[in-house]
Amino acid sequence: MTAVNERLAWRYATKKFDVTKGVPAEKLERIVEAVRLAPTSSGLQPFELFIVSNADIRANIRTVAWDQAQITDCSHLLVFAAWDDITADRVNMMFDLTNEVRGFKNEGWENYRQMLLGIVADRGTEANYQAAARQAYIGLGAALIAAAFEAVDATPMEGFDPSAVDEILDLKSKNLRSVVMLALGYREAEGDWLVNLKKVRRSRDNFVTEVQ
Amino acid sequence: MTAVNERLAWRYATKKFDVTKGVPAEKLERIVEAVRLAPTSSGLQPFELFIVSNADIRANIRTVAWDQAQITDCSHLLVFAAWDDITADRVNMMFDLTNEVRGFKNEGWENYRQMLLGIVADRGTEANYQAAARQAYIGLGAALIAAAFEAVDATPMEGFDPSAVDEILDLKSKNLRSVVMLALGYREAEGDWLVNLKKVRRSRDNFVTEVQ
Repeated sequence: MTAVNERLAWRYATKKFDVTKGVPAEKLERIVEAVRLAPTSSGLQPFELFIVSNADIRANIRTVAWDQAQITDCSHLLVFAAWDDITADRVNMMFDLTNEVRGFKNEGWENYRQMLLGIVADRGTEANYQAAARQAYIGLGAALIAAAFEAVDATPMEGFDPSAVDEILDLKSKNLRSVVMLALGYREAEGDWLVNLKKVRRSRDNFVTEVQ
Repeated sequence: MTAVNERLAWRYATKKFDVTKGVPAEKLERIVEAVRLAPTSSGLQPFELFIVSNADIRANIRTVAWDQAQITDCSHLLVFAAWDDITADRVNMMFDLTNEVRGFKNEGWENYRQMLLGIVADRGTEANYQAAARQAYIGLGAALIAAAFEAVDATPMEGFDPSAVDEILDLKSKNLRSVVMLALGYREAEGDWLVNLKKVRRSRDNFVTEVQ
């Protein structure tokens, strides 16, 4: 078993966090950096990451998230917020940044920019948002694994009212929509009903098909 | 820098694979296992993984994927295929499996099953498919990182006609829809225009907001 799979086997969706334990800043930073480094379609990074430590705001979010205690008990709450649309401005921002970082303009890359601008214009706002939201889950996957490597517990959470969270975090004014959250902290094993239960996954045979 | 971030910095979307180098079976298995172990919403694992090594089928896929050479040049092509709907049967299959693996029935878990059955029935086919597709990207993130830990190159690919790939892999009869692909293999650095270019990501300031 590799380190990645050992860490994936170790982690679980923590149900009870120890409110007395905070995730050290340098660990948090490395988890955030994994999200930032995660690849995305056409390199757009069509989402942003909110690190919510404020207690009042987390209490507000909890009221629109089935009253799940992890939201207020965890050390830091990450909120993944996708672009509400993939606009020409946003595409151009990332392609311009690429030219700036790499220090040159490339014809193939510029042709690809034009093609992509055509695709997102044709596809429309809702489909663009859906495409952006999917990319956020690559970041979520990276964050989960990075947290496990830091021995930090993490609970992915979709059980919340996205519009209400958008309002609490003022995401609409930033043209973002909340997609998924990740609570980070340390398990309080004694109060956690899930910690000692077996991880359940379909067997390889029921999950994988080889086309040889 | 942790191992995860070092590996994320190492990897890139390989443009040219070395057709003479295959990924050893044990490495491939560990990458696949990372996908299988990746967490998903409510533990549903609402997608399946296809490992395509067959040359003719890959040639067919290439014709509906912008003629991208990685599809036929790579060692193995992973296709992530999401459930086309989250049906009651599928929810029950996973909840029953959970009871079987853990060896007991739990009232809280059974109540959650009923609530989830209500949610997916209300939400409808298309929204269920979109939710399932997002989960596949957690698996994609896990596969990318696991591959990087194996020093295996990997190219995520969305540039294909999903309906056409569904037909080639006969996914419709399995009630699946292709979502994203991952080409696995080894880079041929000399023929790869991207290998020596800088990785481009937005700065932390342009990607992360702290709500303190």
